[in-house]
Amino acid sequence: MKLVIGDKNYSSWSMRPWVLLKHFGMAFEEVLIELDEPGTKSSILAFSASGKVPCLVGDDGFAVWDSLAIAETLAERFPQHALWPRDANARARARSVSAEMHAGFGEVRNHMPMNIRKVKPGAGATPGALADVARIDALWRECLAASGGPFLFGGFSIADAMYAPVVMRFNSYQPKLSPEAAAYAQRVSALPAVAEWVEAARRETHIVQDDERDDE
Amino acid sequence: MKLVIGDKNYSSWSMRPWVLLKHFGMAFEEVLIELDEPGTKSSILAFSASGKVPCLVGDDGFAVWDSLAIAETLAERFPQHALWPRDANARARARSVSAEMHAGFGEVRNHMPMNIRKVKPGAGATPGALADVARIDALWRECLAASGGPFLFGGFSIADAMYAPVVMRFNSYQPKLSPEAAAYAQRVSALPAVAEWVEAARRETHIVQDDERDDE
Repeated sequence: MKLVIGDKNYSSWSMRPWVLLKHFGMAFEEVLIELDEPGTKSSILAFSASGKVPCLVGDDGFAVWDSLAIAETLAERFPQHALWPRDANARARARSVSAEMHAGFGEVRNHMPMNIRKVKPGAGATPGALADVARIDALWRECLAASGGPFLFGGFSIADAMYAPVVMRFNSYQPKLSPEAAAYAQRVSALPAVAEWVEAARRETHIVQDDERDDE
Repeated sequence: MKLVIGDKNYSSWSMRPWVLLKHFGMAFEEVLIELDEPGTKSSILAFSASGKVPCLVGDDGFAVWDSLAIAETLAERFPQHALWPRDANARARARSVSAEMHAGFGEVRNHMPMNIRKVKPGAGATPGALADVARIDALWRECLAASGGPFLFGGFSIADAMYAPVVMRFNSYQPKLSPEAAAYAQRVSALPAVAEWVEAARRETHIVQDDERDDE
C-alpha cells in the first residue's frame, strides 16, 4: 500500500497515519507531495478523487482518505495490532478523544500551525488557543491517570497518533502545560516513529508560506 | 442507554446519532438540554466530563461523546445492524466521506447554520459555502452512482446520518443542487427517523440567538 502525504514539516493530518504505520511496523510506500504549489492539487487527484492528503492507496488503487478513516480502516485490516485499545470501554473513550481532536481545537489549529522547524515560545497564545490547550491538557491527564500510561490508553494507539501533531505544536510554541502533560509530550516526541518524522521534517527545504505566519 | 442531545432545531451534531438510533430501532432514552443557556454547560457536565453533546451514556454511567465516536461504538456494539456497509471497501469509503464531513465543510457550517424552522433561500451563499456545497454534491453523486442508492451506500448507514444535518441546511437555504443530489436530499428528509426529528424541532420554542444569524 501507498501513503500519500504532504510536507512532513507542515502536514499535521499526514503525520497521524504515517506515525501509526511506522510504529506498528506495517509496510508501506510513502508518496510525498509538496503542498501549496501550482501542481499540488492535480498530483493528489492522481491518487484520490478527494484531492486531499493523507490518502492510503491499496494495491488495487482503492483510495481511503482522511486521517481518522485511514486509522479505522487500518485497525480493521490489521487486527493483530492493537491500533485501538483492546478493552471495549477504553476503545470507546479513545474514539471519543480522537474524534474530539479530529473535529475540534480550531483555535490551536489556526493560531499554532504545525511547523516542526519553528521554535517560538509564546507565539499563537490567544485566549481561544490557550482554552484549547487547557482542554487538551486536562484530557491527556485524565486518560493517563485512568490507563496508568505511558501513552493515553497504555500502549501507543490511534489516540496518540491523533494528538502527535499537537505535541509538535506544543514543542514549537511552548504553551504552559501541567507536569503530566509535559512528560507525555516528551514521551510522544521520543517515540522512534515520531523522531523519524521530525528528523525528515528538519531536512526538508520546501516552504509553505501560509504556515509560516503566527500570532505574536 | 441515554442519548444526551441539544435543541433539535439547532444541534446538528446531536441529530446524527439520534437519527441512527431511531432508524435502526435501538432503544434509548433521550435527554434534551437546551443549548446556550447559563445552565447548559453544568447540565451536560452531569452526564459527561467532555461538556459536549451529543453524548451516549450507558447503564453503567460510562459516557461516549462525539457523533462519529458514538456511531463507531454503536456499530461495534450492535453488529446485527448494518450501521456501516457490510462490504469492506464500501465501509472504508463510507468512513472517508463521514470523516470528511466530521472535520470539514467549515464554510457551510459557518454560513448556513442548521436551523430547521428557517426557510431562507439564497442566504449564506458565500463563495466558500458554495464551494463546500459543490464538493458535497459531487461526493453524494459519486457514492450514489457507485452504490445504486437509494442512500449513499445502498441502505441507510452512518454516512447518511453524518450528512442528514447538511440536508437540513440545504432545505433551509436551498443552494442549487444537481438533480441526483436534490433527490437524495428528499429521500433523507422523507426517512421516518428524520421526519420525526424535524417535527419535534418545529414544535420547539427555545431560541439560540447565535444560530438565527445568517449571511445574506
